[in-house]
Amino acid sequence: MSEPPDGRRSSREVRLIAVRGAEAVERPDMLAGEEPMAIRAGGPGEAATDVAITMRTPGHDEELAAGFLFTEGLVAVGDVAGFELGDPADVAHPDNEVTVRLRAPFDATAVPARSFIANASCGICGKASLDAVALRSPRVSPGPVVMRSTIVALPDALRAAQATFDATGGLHAAGLFTPAGELVRLREDVGRHNALDKLVGASLLAGELPLADRIVLVSGRLSFELVQKAGAAGVPILCAVSAPSDLAIETAVMLGMTVVGFLRGDRFNIYAGAERIDLGG
Amino acid sequence: MSEPPDGRRSSREVRLIAVRGAEAVERPDMLAGEEPMAIRAGGPGEAATDVAITMRTPGHDEELAAGFLFTEGLVAVGDVAGFELGDPADVAHPDNEVTVRLRAPFDATAVPARSFIANASCGICGKASLDAVALRSPRVSPGPVVMRSTIVALPDALRAAQATFDATGGLHAAGLFTPAGELVRLREDVGRHNALDKLVGASLLAGELPLADRIVLVSGRLSFELVQKAGAAGVPILCAVSAPSDLAIETAVMLGMTVVGFLRGDRFNIYAGAERIDLGG
Repeated sequence: MSEPPDGRRSSREVRLIAVRGAEAVERPDMLAGEEPMAIRAGGPGEAATDVAITMRTPGHDEELAAGFLFTEGLVAVGDVAGFELGDPADVAHPDNEVTVRLRAPFDATAVPARSFIANASCGICGKASLDAVALRSPRVSPGPVVMRSTIVALPDALRAAQATFDATGGLHAAGLFTPAGELVRLREDVGRHNALDKLVGASLLAGELPLADRIVLVSGRLSFELVQKAGAAGVPILCAVSAPSDLAIETAVMLGMTVVGFLRGDRFNIYAGAERIDLGG
Repeated sequence: MSEPPDGRRSSREVRLIAVRGAEAVERPDMLAGEEPMAIRAGGPGEAATDVAITMRTPGHDEELAAGFLFTEGLVAVGDVAGFELGDPADVAHPDNEVTVRLRAPFDATAVPARSFIANASCGICGKASLDAVALRSPRVSPGPVVMRSTIVALPDALRAAQATFDATGGLHAAGLFTPAGELVRLREDVGRHNALDKLVGASLLAGELPLADRIVLVSGRLSFELVQKAGAAGVPILCAVSAPSDLAIETAVMLGMTVVGFLRGDRFNIYAGAERIDLGG
């Protein structure tokens, strides 16, 4: 574990299988930390108001809380008197709750009635998030075994189909593939989670859920939220062009899902569920 | 404007200044579309319940609404009976509201009391979002004029400082620079918006706001939300390694902010506020 200056966990060591062409070697690697954090605000002596929960990398948590309240227009320069970490009523999770104590009463009416929480599965700690997923999503089915040569061909197939991406370079993509690597469906969006929701929604409306015999490839990084959404759709193999977070892998392991990351050229890393990848193929 | 299969706007043409080494040429380019969309749900004959607002690229909106409700565990396979577009009470914004009509009553109690809306500035249309920003953030100050050679050196300076990035490859970064290109502060997070909130929060706590004489560089794409947050902090020059959305640029123009995108090697694009970049420098 690496420690940011304020002593909170910003990354975690895992073991992965690094595939480089025909060679594969198990080795340790570092994953970015991802955990929910609750942001609260209150004036002198006031009970704190819940303002937001955000999935963040632990570290600099007071700055995140103050910066969020400021950039969202809820506090002004000079309003911040100090910080309280943790919920006095919940000593188990001191690191994932920050109360910003203000010099004047906090205008709780400025907080939109429904606001700021991007994801229903956010709990106050990563464990609560995992529990919520476990309650909702069964483990994915055993699913297909896919050849190494099929996995490395997925990014080119996705890019070839990304008509809008070519024009703007600004859209994330989520692609649905057969175990033979044929593209079934592609959806794009400025938001990674939206691209996946569109893909799952299209599959739902086509009567194709669960996606028990399919591979999904996303164009960016792999967060907890994306693994949770893929798990809800029953996807057994989830691939990403970039890096996963630690909570993403923890969730995938719990769901029995295969996760491939840093899929570029003839190289990729297997973070979970290696039994579904045929490295000789 | 390009039209997705269902006729909604997924991208928009803008004019930019393309800087390629010592050469600069004005030309048209396409930006990814970004607009808020409200997701609602209701059973037969029920009034619809507001469930979420998401910033998304228009197109495949019904799939997004159904997919979101499904992957968040709020509806099951087979529940969806159909869709209603727009709010009957608000004919001005038919494209940014989708109601999912269900075959059975919708359990509105399953929607968390505070949920799903990632950003306080989300309105139901892009115009409402812009109005909210205009109310909150004054135009940024005239700010510095920065040399081309300084701009192209920023990404290497950011990467050199990203200790955690080197270890995990999974963190977004936001860097604060002087007009001479010296790094003042760096913050990282799995969430782009969190990295910027940490950077602004640190500057707030250091008594340095507004950041009227500073450049901010972010490692990923540029969304509306990031421009809004940078504007709240008074940042006159915002640079990104990847592409901006159309709403990001519209917001920057309104705030009088300079935006540089696709900053890679000796190349970048200026999307707004070109008067703050000295192309001869």
